[in-house]
Amino acid sequence: MAFVNEHYLKLSGGYLFPEIGRRIDAFAQAHPEAAGRIIHCGIGDVTEPLPAAAIEAMRTAAGELGRRETFRGYGPGPGYDFIRDAIAEHDFRAHGLDVDASEIFVSDGSKGDCGHILEILGPGNRIAVTDPVYPVYVDTNVMVGNTGPANDEGGYDGLLYLPCTPDNGFVAEPPAGKADVIYLCFPNNPTGSMITREQLGAWVDYAIANDSIILYDVAYQAYITEDDLPRSIYEIDGARRCAIELHSFSKNGGFTGLRCGYTVCPKTVEASTRDGTRVALHELWLRRWNTRSNGVSYPVQRAAEALYSPDGKQQVAKLVEYYLANAAMLRAGCEAMRWPVWGGTNAPYVWVACPDGLDSWGMFDRMLGEANVVVVPGRGFGRCGEGFFRISAFNTRSNVEEVVNRISTLTPVKA
Amino acid sequence: MAFVNEHYLKLSGGYLFPEIGRRIDAFAQAHPEAAGRIIHCGIGDVTEPLPAAAIEAMRTAAGELGRRETFRGYGPGPGYDFIRDAIAEHDFRAHGLDVDASEIFVSDGSKGDCGHILEILGPGNRIAVTDPVYPVYVDTNVMVGNTGPANDEGGYDGLLYLPCTPDNGFVAEPPAGKADVIYLCFPNNPTGSMITREQLGAWVDYAIANDSIILYDVAYQAYITEDDLPRSIYEIDGARRCAIELHSFSKNGGFTGLRCGYTVCPKTVEASTRDGTRVALHELWLRRWNTRSNGVSYPVQRAAEALYSPDGKQQVAKLVEYYLANAAMLRAGCEAMRWPVWGGTNAPYVWVACPDGLDSWGMFDRMLGEANVVVVPGRGFGRCGEGFFRISAFNTRSNVEEVVNRISTLTPVKA
Repeated sequence: MAFVNEHYLKLSGGYLFPEIGRRIDAFAQAHPEAAGRIIHCGIGDVTEPLPAAAIEAMRTAAGELGRRETFRGYGPGPGYDFIRDAIAEHDFRAHGLDVDASEIFVSDGSKGDCGHILEILGPGNRIAVTDPVYPVYVDTNVMVGNTGPANDEGGYDGLLYLPCTPDNGFVAEPPAGKADVIYLCFPNNPTGSMITREQLGAWVDYAIANDSIILYDVAYQAYITEDDLPRSIYEIDGARRCAIELHSFSKNGGFTGLRCGYTVCPKTVEASTRDGTRVALHELWLRRWNTRSNGVSYPVQRAAEALYSPDGKQQVAKLVEYYLANAAMLRAGCEAMRWPVWGGTNAPYVWVACPDGLDSWGMFDRMLGEANVVVVPGRGFGRCGEGFFRISAFNTRSNVEEVVNRISTLTPVKA
Repeated sequence: MAFVNEHYLKLSGGYLFPEIGRRIDAFAQAHPEAAGRIIHCGIGDVTEPLPAAAIEAMRTAAGELGRRETFRGYGPGPGYDFIRDAIAEHDFRAHGLDVDASEIFVSDGSKGDCGHILEILGPGNRIAVTDPVYPVYVDTNVMVGNTGPANDEGGYDGLLYLPCTPDNGFVAEPPAGKADVIYLCFPNNPTGSMITREQLGAWVDYAIANDSIILYDVAYQAYITEDDLPRSIYEIDGARRCAIELHSFSKNGGFTGLRCGYTVCPKTVEASTRDGTRVALHELWLRRWNTRSNGVSYPVQRAAEALYSPDGKQQVAKLVEYYLANAAMLRAGCEAMRWPVWGGTNAPYVWVACPDGLDSWGMFDRMLGEANVVVVPGRGFGRCGEGFFRISAFNTRSNVEEVVNRISTLTPVKA
């Protein structure tokens, strides 16, 4: 008799976005006249076309595959040298950071890597996540059995939740107790908060003292505008001993549909067997890629490489500038309503306290019903997200202008 | 203290192909004059350019992503409807097979799916593999803890190995004992053998009787030339209750570097919880894809779709014909030497008994040393592969002609 992975059965009622979809459908059915007016500021998907440099590189690479002399079959599991070298050079060495090309593993996106990395980690690890949090961190841990059952608070037993609130500026501090694997994401999804170098240093110190591993997600790295904020955890002394860094080309190059990202696994990061033997995770991670993958599509790797060309860099900078200008407009629109607002300056997400005593889903329904604008209820990201909502700046300029305009016409609910 | 997945440490000395690479390097260093003559018939990687229809579709799709009106971001986890519909129509409904588009999950290749599918299956399953076998089936099971340690015979404790020998025509029969999950691959890698409808029927009967799941790998489906052989396990009554089928575009469309394949998970395949509750695997598999992936690169999905166009079909047929003609030449070359030979008629692999009492690695060394031709020693695929070697027909015509020519000049070793 074949057995299922029963941990999957612990997963509670589906992902946040299906529930949002359900409410949108219900609204559109009840109000067909408003259905066409709905503007989506929910899911963090880009809207602007891909950089021309990436398209050109992809088309050229596709052409190469059509001629026998330039045809390529199976590529290396962790990616071609040309892209690993470009990443090491431009994302690390150019900033004085010590990351070797052999420590870079090209993948089909950061979302995949969030799950894959758990394959090389053992059972018995205590996992810490922030609250609110990107749901994929949690769900992938549930699926591999790193948690207990779902609990009444909408979380899972056995996970260590690190509260992020206005009091700590939505930046979690290291806990008093022990955590073996810690997920940190800065610029943060969903709150748009950013960590300082000192705060990140405290986390690296904690990880070294506790022999923990930090999974540091910098998918939104390109949106950091302030010079003195850390763009990579490897800017912090000691991070090469305890941190794996997850990168994405989705939000800088707009690769959400092209699928490419990478993970940095320094050769100096170790974890333990039950009997205390130290094992370099790099070796396991390399084995994982060679056994379970044949690498990312060759034309996609060429497209990613093109983002590092002079033209590519300029085109990426323009995209980021565009979305950051959207974020600034959304921030200003909320501030004009005297809604307390965070994020949006070093991140494409604006995080807003629900006005008028509404809870997250109440505000979601009001924004949908009165302004026909879809936002994400903070509660969907965790218990501490209650009372907040997220607006995504990934949208066209005209949509953002219209959203700001509609927000301004909302009538305050009487207290 | 963070713990590693200790199952990885059971993996024995690395994959087969690195050892082959080591021996090639050593030979080339000792015989620099012969290094340039080496012809690779080892790894099953294609050599001919991609079908023009696929390249054209990919280039068009890349162009779409460069214009705001046609830009696409995140796609559906299990693939776009356009490709799932094309697959369901051309690979199944056109042959009278009952597979719905919603049961098709597009992936970045069959190799990945071999590992991914284990994520939704529980611990405690007894796994059966053929011997010889594609090493990825075994290694991925080691990595998730479905086996004991490596043993002296080059296998792993706890796995059920099904011997494939000349006596059974390299087609394993169902075992007397119980197996919960069974890997079958036809046309077979590495032996090139093909299963009959009756033999496959016996396997489906076995799986239903034992409540087992068959993982049926048809990566080489396009090479089946005989009309009465089963192209899909769903040609067999009852297979929709017990079989998951793995498909690849690598060996028909030549997508080894483009990365695309798909898995069929019928809604009617179930497995059990420990307390006997039946669970549809389709639901878990869908959850897996939505949580851990954002699907395959859009231009790659368009390229795969193009393989089903009239032009694409014709171009694929020509590729398959080309490699099958290579296989026939290699077969004939071996037969002329009076080497016992299997495969190569419904498969791109020719499986040969080592002559002159040589063992697998002995024959590997002789082919490399005397003919400067790289083959794969059967022993690398398992204990029952000892005494055989595999020649791949994935090569240029001129290389194949030269390989046949060189084989003919080998002097028989005296008994």
